[in-house]
Amino acid sequence: MKGKLYGIGVGPGDPELLTLKAKRILDAADVIAVPVKEKGEKSTALEIIRPVTELEGKEILEVVFRMARDEGERRRCREAAADQLAKLLDQGRNVAMITLGDVAVYSTYMYVNQYVAERGYETELIPGIPSFCSGASAAGLPLMEGNESLVIVPSVRESEALERAIADFDNVVVMKAGGSIGRIGELLDKYECPRECACVLSCVGMEDEYIGPLNPEREYSYFTTVLIKKKGK
Amino acid sequence: MKGKLYGIGVGPGDPELLTLKAKRILDAADVIAVPVKEKGEKSTALEIIRPVTELEGKEILEVVFRMARDEGERRRCREAAADQLAKLLDQGRNVAMITLGDVAVYSTYMYVNQYVAERGYETELIPGIPSFCSGASAAGLPLMEGNESLVIVPSVRESEALERAIADFDNVVVMKAGGSIGRIGELLDKYECPRECACVLSCVGMEDEYIGPLNPEREYSYFTTVLIKKKGK
Repeated sequence: MKGKLYGIGVGPGDPELLTLKAKRILDAADVIAVPVKEKGEKSTALEIIRPVTELEGKEILEVVFRMARDEGERRRCREAAADQLAKLLDQGRNVAMITLGDVAVYSTYMYVNQYVAERGYETELIPGIPSFCSGASAAGLPLMEGNESLVIVPSVRESEALERAIADFDNVVVMKAGGSIGRIGELLDKYECPRECACVLSCVGMEDEYIGPLNPEREYSYFTTVLIKKKGK
Repeated sequence: MKGKLYGIGVGPGDPELLTLKAKRILDAADVIAVPVKEKGEKSTALEIIRPVTELEGKEILEVVFRMARDEGERRRCREAAADQLAKLLDQGRNVAMITLGDVAVYSTYMYVNQYVAERGYETELIPGIPSFCSGASAAGLPLMEGNESLVIVPSVRESEALERAIADFDNVVVMKAGGSIGRIGELLDKYECPRECACVLSCVGMEDEYIGPLNPEREYSYFTTVLIKKKGK
Protein backbone atom coordinates (compact mmCIF):
# COMPACT_ATOMS: atom_id res chain seq x y z
CA MET A 1 0.00 0.00 0.00
CA LYS A 2 1.37 3.36 -1.02
CA GLY A 3 1.09 6.35 1.31
CA LYS A 4 -1.00 9.44 0.64
CA LEU A 5 0.20 13.01 0.30
CA TYR A 6 -1.73 15.84 1.95
CA GLY A 7 -1.15 19.53 1.23
CA ILE A 8 -2.35 21.46 4.23
CA GLY A 9 -3.02 25.18 4.57
CA VAL A 10 -2.22 26.00 8.22
CA GLY A 11 -3.68 29.49 8.18
CA PRO A 12 -1.99 32.86 8.62
CA GLY A 13 -0.37 32.73 12.07
CA ASP A 14 -2.68 32.01 15.01
CA PRO A 15 -2.39 28.25 15.73
CA GLU A 16 -6.09 28.19 16.66
CA LEU A 17 -6.97 29.11 13.06
CA LEU A 18 -6.00 25.61 11.99
CA THR A 19 -9.08 23.66 10.88
CA LEU A 20 -10.27 20.54 12.66
CA LYS A 21 -9.46 18.60 9.49
CA ALA A 22 -5.89 19.91 9.28
CA LYS A 23 -5.32 18.96 12.92
CA ARG A 24 -6.74 15.45 12.44
CA ILE A 25 -4.55 14.77 9.41
CA LEU A 26 -1.41 16.26 10.98
CA ASP A 27 -1.97 14.25 14.18
CA ALA A 28 -2.23 11.03 12.15
CA ALA A 29 0.49 11.67 9.53
CA ASP A 30 3.76 9.71 9.59
CA VAL A 31 5.86 12.54 8.16
CA ILE A 32 5.42 16.32 8.33
CA ALA A 33 7.03 17.92 5.27
CA VAL A 34 8.09 21.53 5.77
CA PRO A 35 8.98 23.78 2.82
CA VAL A 36 12.08 25.93 3.42
CA LYS A 37 14.17 28.21 1.25
CA GLU A 38 17.43 26.89 2.77
CA LYS A 39 18.24 23.87 4.96
CA GLY A 40 17.93 24.68 8.66
CA GLU A 41 15.77 27.76 8.08
CA LYS A 42 13.11 28.48 10.70
CA SER A 43 9.65 27.62 9.38
CA THR A 44 6.73 29.83 10.36
CA ALA A 45 4.27 27.13 9.25
CA LEU A 46 5.91 24.61 11.60
CA GLU A 47 5.79 27.07 14.51
CA ILE A 48 2.07 27.55 13.81
CA ILE A 49 1.16 23.86 14.07
CA ARG A 50 3.52 23.02 16.98
CA PRO A 51 1.26 24.10 19.88
CA VAL A 52 -1.91 22.44 18.55
CA THR A 53 -0.78 19.16 16.96
CA GLU A 54 0.89 15.93 18.08
CA LEU A 55 4.40 16.04 16.63
CA GLU A 56 6.19 13.69 19.03
CA GLY A 57 7.73 10.68 17.32
CA LYS A 58 7.05 12.12 13.86
CA GLU A 59 9.63 12.67 11.19
CA ILE A 60 9.94 16.34 10.28
CA LEU A 61 11.27 16.58 6.74
CA GLU A 62 12.68 19.80 5.29
CA VAL A 63 11.90 20.25 1.60
CA VAL A 64 14.02 22.93 -0.05
CA PHE A 65 12.47 25.33 -2.55
CA ARG A 66 15.07 27.88 -3.59
CA MET A 67 13.70 31.27 -4.62
CA ALA A 68 15.72 31.08 -7.84
CA ARG A 69 15.17 33.69 -10.53
CA ASP A 70 15.63 31.02 -13.17
CA GLU A 71 12.40 29.16 -13.97
CA GLY A 72 14.37 26.00 -14.88
CA GLU A 73 16.12 26.01 -11.49
CA ARG A 74 12.78 26.43 -9.71
CA ARG A 75 11.30 23.53 -11.68
CA ARG A 76 14.27 21.29 -10.79
CA CYS A 77 13.73 22.13 -7.11
CA ARG A 78 10.07 21.19 -7.36
CA GLU A 79 10.85 17.92 -9.15
CA ALA A 80 13.48 17.05 -6.53
CA ALA A 81 10.85 17.74 -3.85
CA ALA A 82 8.39 15.46 -5.63
CA ASP A 83 11.08 12.70 -5.78
CA GLN A 84 11.80 13.10 -2.08
CA LEU A 85 8.08 12.81 -1.21
CA ALA A 86 7.45 9.91 -3.64
CA LYS A 87 10.13 7.83 -1.88
CA LEU A 88 8.30 8.19 1.42
CA LEU A 89 4.94 7.40 -0.20
CA ASP A 90 6.49 4.24 -1.73
CA GLN A 91 7.34 3.14 1.83
CA GLY A 92 3.63 3.34 2.63
CA ARG A 93 4.01 6.43 4.82
CA ASN A 94 1.42 9.21 4.84
CA VAL A 95 3.01 12.62 4.37
CA ALA A 96 1.45 16.00 5.28
CA MET A 97 3.11 19.03 3.73
CA ILE A 98 2.28 22.28 5.48
CA THR A 99 1.95 25.67 3.86
CA LEU A 100 1.11 29.13 5.24
CA GLY A 101 -2.39 30.50 4.74
CA ASP A 102 -4.48 28.67 2.14
CA VAL A 103 -2.98 25.99 -0.06
CA ALA A 104 -4.53 27.49 -3.24
CA VAL A 105 -3.25 31.03 -2.60
CA TYR A 106 0.32 31.54 -3.93
CA SER A 107 1.56 28.25 -2.58
CA THR A 108 4.57 26.44 -4.04
CA TYR A 109 2.99 23.23 -2.80
CA MET A 110 0.52 23.21 -5.71
CA TYR A 111 3.30 22.42 -8.21
CA VAL A 112 4.52 19.53 -6.07
CA ASN A 113 0.99 18.24 -5.69
CA GLN A 114 0.64 18.18 -9.47
CA TYR A 115 3.94 16.33 -10.05
CA VAL A 116 3.13 13.75 -7.35
CA ALA A 117 -0.45 13.25 -8.58
CA GLU A 118 0.77 12.82 -12.18
CA ARG A 119 2.95 9.94 -11.00
CA GLY A 120 -0.18 8.16 -9.80
CA TYR A 121 -0.05 8.81 -6.06
CA GLU A 122 -3.15 9.77 -4.08
CA THR A 123 -3.12 13.40 -2.95
CA GLU A 124 -5.55 15.65 -1.08
CA LEU A 125 -5.60 19.40 -0.49
CA ILE A 126 -6.89 20.86 2.78
CA PRO A 127 -7.79 24.56 2.56
CA GLY A 128 -6.63 27.05 5.19
CA ILE A 129 -7.59 30.57 6.24
CA PRO A 130 -5.88 33.07 3.88
CA SER A 131 -4.10 36.01 5.51
CA PHE A 132 -6.44 38.52 3.88
CA CYS A 133 -9.43 36.93 5.63
CA SER A 134 -7.85 36.95 9.09
CA GLY A 135 -6.55 40.47 8.48
CA ALA A 136 -10.02 41.75 7.61
CA SER A 137 -11.47 40.09 10.71
CA ALA A 138 -8.77 41.54 12.95
CA ALA A 139 -9.41 45.02 11.52
CA GLY A 140 -13.19 44.58 11.83
CA LEU A 141 -13.62 45.31 8.11
CA PRO A 142 -15.57 43.39 5.46
CA LEU A 143 -13.52 42.36 2.42
CA MET A 144 -16.65 42.89 0.33
CA GLU A 145 -20.36 43.34 0.93
CA GLY A 146 -23.52 43.54 -1.17
CA ASN A 147 -22.65 43.68 -4.86
CA GLU A 148 -18.99 44.64 -4.43
CA SER A 149 -16.01 42.88 -5.98
CA LEU A 150 -12.54 42.19 -4.59
CA VAL A 151 -9.19 42.06 -6.40
CA ILE A 152 -6.16 40.39 -4.83
CA VAL A 153 -2.79 41.50 -6.25
CA PRO A 154 0.40 39.68 -5.19
CA SER A 155 2.58 42.74 -4.62
CA VAL A 156 3.04 46.35 -5.63
CA ARG A 157 5.57 45.22 -8.24
CA GLU A 158 2.57 44.04 -10.28
CA SER A 159 1.84 47.68 -10.68
CA GLU A 160 -0.22 47.39 -13.86
CA ALA A 161 -2.64 44.95 -12.22
CA LEU A 162 -2.70 47.11 -9.10
CA GLU A 163 -3.52 50.27 -11.04
CA ARG A 164 -6.36 48.56 -12.91
CA ALA A 165 -7.65 47.17 -9.65
CA ILE A 166 -7.68 50.57 -7.95
CA ALA A 167 -9.15 52.23 -11.03
CA ASP A 168 -11.98 49.73 -11.64
CA PHE A 169 -12.88 47.75 -8.50
CA ASP A 170 -14.41 48.41 -5.07
CA ASN A 171 -11.95 46.55 -2.86
CA VAL A 172 -8.29 45.68 -3.34
CA VAL A 173 -5.95 43.50 -1.32
CA VAL A 174 -2.22 43.99 -1.95
CA MET A 175 -0.13 41.15 -0.57
CA LYS A 176 3.61 41.31 0.30
CA ALA A 177 3.17 45.08 0.54
CA GLY A 178 5.72 45.63 3.33
CA GLY A 179 8.34 47.41 1.25
CA SER A 180 5.88 49.47 -0.78
CA ILE A 181 3.67 51.38 1.65
CA GLY A 182 4.83 54.71 0.18
CA ARG A 183 4.13 53.58 -3.37
CA ILE A 184 0.60 52.49 -2.45
CA GLY A 185 -0.03 55.95 -1.00
CA GLU A 186 1.13 57.54 -4.27
CA LEU A 187 -1.17 55.29 -6.31
CA LEU A 188 -4.15 56.20 -4.13
CA ASP A 189 -3.37 59.89 -4.65
CA LYS A 190 -3.15 59.35 -8.41
CA TYR A 191 -6.64 57.78 -8.49
CA GLU A 192 -8.04 60.36 -6.06
CA CYS A 193 -8.80 57.76 -3.45
CA PRO A 194 -8.35 59.12 0.11
CA ARG A 195 -5.43 57.48 1.93
CA GLU A 196 -7.84 56.74 4.80
CA CYS A 197 -9.43 54.09 2.54
CA ALA A 198 -6.35 51.91 3.05
CA CYS A 199 -5.67 49.75 6.09
CA VAL A 200 -2.32 48.04 6.71
CA LEU A 201 -2.64 44.50 8.10
CA SER A 202 0.83 43.42 9.22
CA CYS A 203 1.77 40.22 11.11
CA VAL A 204 -1.86 39.59 12.06
CA GLY A 205 -2.04 37.11 14.94
CA MET A 206 1.75 37.16 15.33
CA GLU A 207 4.10 39.25 17.47
CA ASP A 208 4.52 42.79 16.09
CA GLU A 209 0.93 42.86 14.81
CA TYR A 210 0.16 46.26 13.28
CA ILE A 211 -3.30 47.19 12.04
CA GLY A 212 -3.55 50.82 11.07
CA PRO A 213 -3.14 53.56 8.50
CA LEU A 214 -0.49 53.72 5.77
CA ASN A 215 2.59 54.95 7.57
CA PRO A 216 5.61 55.09 5.27
CA GLU A 217 7.93 55.91 8.22
CA ARG A 218 7.40 52.52 9.83
CA GLU A 219 9.14 49.25 8.90
CA TYR A 220 6.97 46.31 7.86
CA SER A 221 7.69 42.59 7.65
CA TYR A 222 7.16 40.21 4.74
CA PHE A 223 3.76 39.35 6.24
CA THR A 224 2.15 42.66 5.35
CA THR A 225 -1.08 43.08 3.44
CA VAL A 226 -2.89 46.30 2.56
CA LEU A 227 -6.69 46.36 2.25
CA ILE A 228 -8.05 49.26 0.17
CA LYS A 229 -11.79 49.95 0.46
CA LYS A 230 -12.59 52.61 -2.11
CA LYS A 231 -16.07 53.31 -0.74
CA GLY A 232 -14.51 53.90 2.69
CA LYS A 233 -14.40 51.77 5.79
CA MET B 1 -20.45 42.22 33.37
CA LYS B 2 -21.80 42.48 29.85
CA GLY B 3 -21.51 39.55 27.47
CA LYS B 4 -19.38 39.48 24.34
CA LEU B 5 -20.55 39.03 20.77
CA TYR B 6 -18.60 36.76 18.42
CA GLY B 7 -19.13 36.64 14.65
CA ILE B 8 -17.95 33.27 13.46
CA GLY B 9 -17.25 32.09 9.93
CA VAL B 10 -18.08 28.36 9.94
CA GLY B 11 -16.58 27.59 6.54
CA PRO B 12 -18.26 26.43 3.35
CA GLY B 13 -19.91 23.12 4.22
CA ASP B 14 -17.65 20.38 5.61
CA PRO B 15 -17.98 20.54 9.43
CA GLU B 16 -14.29 19.61 9.75
CA LEU B 17 -13.36 22.90 8.06
CA LEU B 18 -14.36 24.74 11.22
CA THR B 19 -11.29 26.24 12.89
CA LEU B 20 -10.14 25.18 16.36
CA LYS B 21 -10.94 28.72 17.52
CA ALA B 22 -14.49 28.66 16.16
CA LYS B 23 -15.11 25.33 17.88
CA ARG B 24 -13.72 26.57 21.21
CA ILE B 25 -15.88 29.70 21.18
CA LEU B 26 -19.03 27.86 20.03
CA ASP B 27 -18.52 25.19 22.72
CA ALA B 28 -18.28 27.90 25.40
CA ALA B 29 -20.96 30.32 24.16
CA ASP B 30 -24.24 30.75 26.03
CA VAL B 31 -26.30 31.51 22.93
CA ILE B 32 -25.82 30.51 19.29
CA ALA B 33 -27.38 33.14 17.02
CA VAL B 34 -28.42 31.85 13.61
CA PRO B 35 -29.24 34.23 10.74
CA VAL B 36 -32.33 33.18 8.76
CA LYS B 37 -34.39 34.79 6.01
CA GLU B 38 -37.66 33.63 7.61
CA LYS B 39 -38.54 32.21 11.03
CA GLY B 40 -38.24 28.41 11.08
CA GLU B 41 -36.06 28.27 7.96
CA LYS B 42 -33.42 25.53 7.87
CA SER B 43 -29.95 26.98 8.47
CA THR B 44 -27.02 25.50 6.57
CA ALA B 45 -24.59 27.17 8.98
CA LEU B 46 -26.27 25.47 11.94
CA GLU B 47 -26.15 22.07 10.20
CA ILE B 48 -22.42 22.60 9.63
CA ILE B 49 -21.55 23.18 13.30
CA ARG B 50 -23.96 20.56 14.73
CA PRO B 51 -21.73 17.45 14.35
CA VAL B 52 -18.56 19.10 15.72
CA THR B 53 -19.71 21.39 18.55
CA GLU B 54 -21.43 21.01 21.91
CA LEU B 55 -24.92 22.46 21.43
CA GLU B 56 -26.76 20.65 24.21
CA GLY B 57 -28.31 23.01 26.74
CA LYS B 58 -27.56 26.06 24.60
CA GLU B 59 -30.12 28.56 23.46
CA ILE B 60 -30.35 28.64 19.65
CA LEU B 61 -31.66 32.06 18.62
CA GLU B 62 -33.02 32.75 15.14
CA VAL B 63 -32.20 36.23 13.88
CA VAL B 64 -34.27 37.26 10.88
CA PHE B 65 -32.67 39.15 7.99
CA ARG B 66 -35.23 39.61 5.25
CA MET B 67 -33.82 39.83 1.74
CA ALA B 68 -35.81 43.01 1.16
CA ARG B 69 -35.20 45.04 -1.98
CA ASP B 70 -35.66 48.21 0.01
CA GLU B 71 -32.43 49.39 1.67
CA GLY B 72 -34.42 50.99 4.54
CA GLU B 73 -36.20 47.70 5.26
CA ARG B 74 -32.87 45.84 5.30
CA ARG B 75 -31.41 48.41 7.70
CA ARG B 76 -34.42 48.07 10.03
CA CYS B 77 -33.89 44.30 10.05
CA ARG B 78 -30.23 44.73 10.98
CA GLU B 79 -31.04 47.21 13.73
CA ALA B 80 -33.70 44.89 15.12
CA ALA B 81 -31.09 42.09 15.09
CA ALA B 82 -28.64 44.32 16.95
CA ASP B 83 -31.36 45.12 19.56
CA GLN B 84 -32.11 41.42 19.99
CA LEU B 85 -28.42 40.62 20.54
CA ALA B 86 -27.79 43.62 22.82
CA LYS B 87 -30.52 42.41 25.21
CA LEU B 88 -28.71 39.09 25.62
CA LEU B 89 -25.36 40.82 26.07
CA ASP B 90 -26.93 43.02 28.79
CA GLN B 91 -27.82 39.82 30.64
CA GLY B 92 -24.10 38.95 30.67
CA ARG B 93 -24.47 36.15 28.15
CA ASN B 94 -21.86 35.47 25.47
CA VAL B 95 -23.40 35.17 22.02
CA ALA B 96 -21.82 33.51 18.97
CA MET B 97 -23.44 34.35 15.65
CA ILE B 98 -22.59 31.90 12.88
CA THR B 99 -22.20 32.73 9.22
CA LEU B 100 -21.35 30.59 6.17
CA GLY B 101 -17.83 30.74 4.77
CA ASP B 102 -15.72 33.66 5.99
CA VAL B 103 -17.22 36.42 8.10
CA ALA B 104 -15.62 39.17 5.94
CA VAL B 105 -16.89 37.76 2.62
CA TYR B 106 -20.43 38.96 1.78
CA SER B 107 -21.72 38.42 5.28
CA THR B 108 -24.72 40.27 6.68
CA TYR B 109 -23.19 39.76 10.09
CA MET B 110 -20.68 42.58 9.49
CA TYR B 111 -23.44 45.22 9.65
CA VAL B 112 -24.73 43.80 12.92
CA ASN B 113 -21.21 43.70 14.32
CA GLN B 114 -20.82 47.38 13.53
CA TYR B 115 -24.13 48.38 15.15
CA VAL B 116 -23.38 46.34 18.28
CA ALA B 117 -19.78 47.61 18.55
CA GLU B 118 -20.98 51.23 18.13
CA ARG B 119 -23.20 50.74 21.18
CA GLY B 120 -20.10 49.95 23.22
CA TYR B 121 -20.27 46.15 23.43
CA GLU B 122 -17.18 44.01 22.98
CA THR B 123 -17.18 42.07 19.69
CA GLU B 124 -14.74 39.72 17.96
CA LEU B 125 -14.67 38.31 14.44
CA ILE B 126 -13.40 34.77 13.78
CA PRO B 127 -12.46 34.15 10.15
CA GLY B 128 -13.62 31.04 8.29
CA ILE B 129 -12.64 29.21 5.11
CA PRO B 130 -14.31 30.96 2.12
CA SER B 131 -16.08 28.73 -0.40
CA PHE B 132 -13.70 29.74 -3.19
CA CYS B 133 -10.74 28.36 -1.21
CA SER B 134 -12.36 25.00 -0.46
CA GLY B 135 -13.62 24.81 -4.04
CA ALA B 136 -10.13 25.34 -5.45
CA SER B 137 -8.73 22.67 -3.12
CA ALA B 138 -11.45 20.20 -4.05
CA ALA B 139 -10.75 20.80 -7.76
CA GLY B 140 -6.98 20.57 -7.22
CA LEU B 141 -6.51 24.02 -8.75
CA PRO B 142 -4.55 27.01 -7.46
CA LEU B 143 -6.56 30.23 -7.18
CA MET B 144 -3.41 32.12 -8.12
CA GLU B 145 0.30 31.40 -8.37
CA GLY B 146 3.49 33.36 -8.99
CA ASN B 147 2.65 36.93 -9.96
CA GLU B 148 -0.99 36.33 -10.85
CA SER B 149 -3.98 38.27 -9.53
CA LEU B 150 -7.47 37.11 -8.59
CA VAL B 151 -10.80 38.93 -8.91
CA ILE B 152 -13.86 37.81 -6.97
CA VAL B 153 -17.20 38.97 -8.41
CA PRO B 154 -20.42 38.38 -6.42
CA SER B 155 -22.58 37.15 -9.32
CA VAL B 156 -23.02 37.31 -13.07
CA ARG B 157 -25.51 40.13 -12.59
CA GLU B 158 -22.50 42.38 -11.85
CA SER B 159 -21.74 41.94 -15.48
CA GLU B 160 -19.63 45.09 -15.90
CA ALA B 161 -17.25 44.02 -13.11
CA LEU B 162 -17.21 40.49 -14.52
CA GLU B 163 -16.34 41.66 -18.03
CA ARG B 164 -13.49 43.85 -16.75
CA ALA B 165 -12.24 40.97 -14.64
CA ILE B 166 -12.22 38.54 -17.57
CA ALA B 167 -10.68 41.16 -19.87
CA ASP B 168 -7.87 42.29 -17.54
CA PHE B 169 -7.03 39.66 -14.89
CA ASP B 170 -5.54 36.15 -14.73
CA ASN B 171 -8.04 34.44 -12.47
CA VAL B 172 -11.70 35.15 -11.77
CA VAL B 173 -14.09 33.68 -9.22
CA VAL B 174 -17.81 34.21 -9.87
CA MET B 175 -19.94 33.53 -6.83
CA LYS B 176 -23.68 32.68 -6.85
CA ALA B 177 -23.22 31.60 -10.45
CA GLY B 178 -25.78 28.76 -10.39
CA GLY B 179 -28.36 30.42 -12.63
CA SER B 180 -25.86 31.90 -15.06
CA ILE B 181 -23.65 29.11 -16.34
CA GLY B 182 -24.76 29.78 -19.92
CA ARG B 183 -24.06 33.50 -19.62
CA ILE B 184 -20.53 32.83 -18.31
CA GLY B 185 -19.87 30.62 -21.34
CA GLU B 186 -20.99 33.46 -23.65
CA LEU B 187 -18.69 35.94 -21.89
CA LEU B 188 -15.72 33.58 -22.24
CA ASP B 189 -16.47 33.26 -25.97
CA LYS B 190 -16.65 37.06 -26.29
CA TYR B 191 -13.18 37.45 -24.74
CA GLU B 192 -11.77 34.48 -26.70
CA CYS B 193 -11.06 32.53 -23.56
CA PRO B 194 -11.56 28.76 -24.09
CA ARG B 195 -14.51 27.39 -22.11
CA GLU B 196 -12.14 24.73 -20.71
CA CYS B 197 -10.55 27.51 -18.61
CA ALA B 198 -13.66 27.54 -16.41
CA CYS B 199 -14.39 25.07 -13.65
CA VAL B 200 -17.76 24.88 -11.88
CA LEU B 201 -17.50 24.32 -8.11
CA SER B 202 -20.98 23.49 -6.86
CA CYS B 203 -21.99 22.37 -3.35
CA VAL B 204 -18.37 21.56 -2.46
CA GLY B 205 -18.24 19.28 0.59
CA MET B 206 -22.04 18.93 0.59
CA GLU B 207 -24.41 16.41 -0.99
CA ASP B 208 -24.76 16.97 -4.76
CA GLU B 209 -21.15 18.15 -5.07
CA TYR B 210 -20.33 18.90 -8.72
CA ILE B 211 -16.85 19.87 -9.85
CA GLY B 212 -16.54 19.98 -13.59
CA PRO B 213 -16.90 21.88 -16.86
CA LEU B 214 -19.53 24.53 -17.64
CA ASN B 215 -22.60 22.51 -18.48
CA PRO B 216 -25.62 24.75 -19.18
CA GLU B 217 -27.95 21.70 -19.34
CA ARG B 218 -27.44 20.88 -15.67
CA GLU B 219 -29.22 22.54 -12.72
CA TYR B 220 -27.07 24.21 -10.07
CA SER B 221 -27.84 25.25 -6.51
CA TYR B 222 -27.30 28.61 -4.81
CA PHE B 223 -23.92 27.34 -3.60
CA THR B 224 -22.27 27.45 -7.00
CA THR B 225 -19.01 29.19 -7.80
CA VAL B 226 -17.16 29.31 -11.11
CA LEU B 227 -13.37 29.56 -11.19
CA ILE B 228 -11.95 30.92 -14.45
CA LYS B 229 -8.20 30.44 -15.03
CA LYS B 230 -7.35 32.34 -18.19
CA LYS B 231 -3.88 30.80 -18.51
CA GLY B 232 -5.47 27.33 -18.34
CA LYS B 233 -5.65 24.83 -15.52
